[in-house]
Amino acid sequence: MEEHKNNQSLKRHIVKVFDEELQTLRENILQLGFLAKEQLANALSSLITKNHEQAGKVVSADSNINKLDRKIQTMALTIMARRQPTAVDLRSIIVALKISSKIERIADYAANIAQRVMLIGNVPHLDPAIRSIMRIGNMTMDLFNNVLDSYNERDIDKAIKVWSSDAEVDDMYVSLLRELLTYMMEDPRQITVCTHLLFIGRNLERIGDHATSIAENVHFMIKGCPPSGERPKGVHWGEINNIDV
Amino acid sequence: MEEHKNNQSLKRHIVKVFDEELQTLRENILQLGFLAKEQLANALSSLITKNHEQAGKVVSADSNINKLDRKIQTMALTIMARRQPTAVDLRSIIVALKISSKIERIADYAANIAQRVMLIGNVPHLDPAIRSIMRIGNMTMDLFNNVLDSYNERDIDKAIKVWSSDAEVDDMYVSLLRELLTYMMEDPRQITVCTHLLFIGRNLERIGDHATSIAENVHFMIKGCPPSGERPKGVHWGEINNIDV
Repeated sequence: MEEHKNNQSLKRHIVKVFDEELQTLRENILQLGFLAKEQLANALSSLITKNHEQAGKVVSADSNINKLDRKIQTMALTIMARRQPTAVDLRSIIVALKISSKIERIADYAANIAQRVMLIGNVPHLDPAIRSIMRIGNMTMDLFNNVLDSYNERDIDKAIKVWSSDAEVDDMYVSLLRELLTYMMEDPRQITVCTHLLFIGRNLERIGDHATSIAENVHFMIKGCPPSGERPKGVHWGEINNIDV
Repeated sequence: MEEHKNNQSLKRHIVKVFDEELQTLRENILQLGFLAKEQLANALSSLITKNHEQAGKVVSADSNINKLDRKIQTMALTIMARRQPTAVDLRSIIVALKISSKIERIADYAANIAQRVMLIGNVPHLDPAIRSIMRIGNMTMDLFNNVLDSYNERDIDKAIKVWSSDAEVDDMYVSLLRELLTYMMEDPRQITVCTHLLFIGRNLERIGDHATSIAENVHFMIKGCPPSGERPKGVHWGEINNIDV
């Protein structure tokens, strides 16, 4: 009888420690998301204000994010090896691994935007294009914000909303491309700068894709399957729209 | 005594089934790698021969690769949930999950190259730029080939070699950028086509990065840790070279 009680108490203890480990993993993911959001916000702010110092800080802060991602990867593997979780617990750890990599990539894109800001200099005649980029930037910030909320709150409706609204970013990106091509044709001296702006737009479009992919992972974590149906896609360059790279 | 024997035989049976499952997972990864290599080779061949039909086939074959990737993801999760592996077995399943996603992305880039080939048309005066792209393409094909071999043969030296030779691709990509910018400035009517070529170069550079990242995963699978030391990096646009996006 006494032994049975002890066993039960040990079991409860193990479950409690396991829950705490999962909670820590979750908090680390949210912390990583917070840092990446900050990086993206600062990169965009440095673009609109032409603040090279701020851009430089974004570039140098990227290594902290890489470190935290590696810490999360190790933590997830350790929990898996030690606790051998199944079902929803296994899914949530696998998803943590995947989401962590994706957030780390989003931060890489933010750092790349900041790098390009440092190479652009002051180009007042390109301000309309920069404003178009900011519109895409604000939209991707929203997507990224909402998908992190959907992870934090395990909110499947929010995840599906992100998953189905990336098409708008794609559309805005394609019209930015057209705008930039026009500038380049009008004044070939602007080609190098416009190429940087083009890649900044591209980076934002990729961040939107990653937010969508995080949404798929949140759906999988909660439901055990990816969202069903075809994801709505925006108009793509050349009207070929079944692949986005 | 009889019971002990039966238990032993059951244990041997379970271990054997588990080994077979791991082997099937491995074979599926290699099959995925084979398909992605074929896609990349065909995309590059369609670029140099300006064969739109071949490019179209690459675009439509992409969905098979996505399907096989999803199959591998499910298979890996099922093995993990059922067998609760530890140590090297756990690592090899996690790595299978990651490598599968990366190969799927490489195939996406190949399909995007093929899409752009279909939009380019015949541009004989840009043949030198296309030849520069083919040099990058051949180099990334080699990296991708070698990293798949390193996974197949569990050859850590081969993995490290891939990991440390991506810098050359980066260098070639930067000189392609300069070449294309010159073409655009000389003749603004070429800007749209050159932008496609620029993104094709970018896609190849990203494939090189993914090959490097697969090499890191192979190292982790065998040794339990990522390769040590800083990875050699090529010259980057603007001489800022600590981030590649």
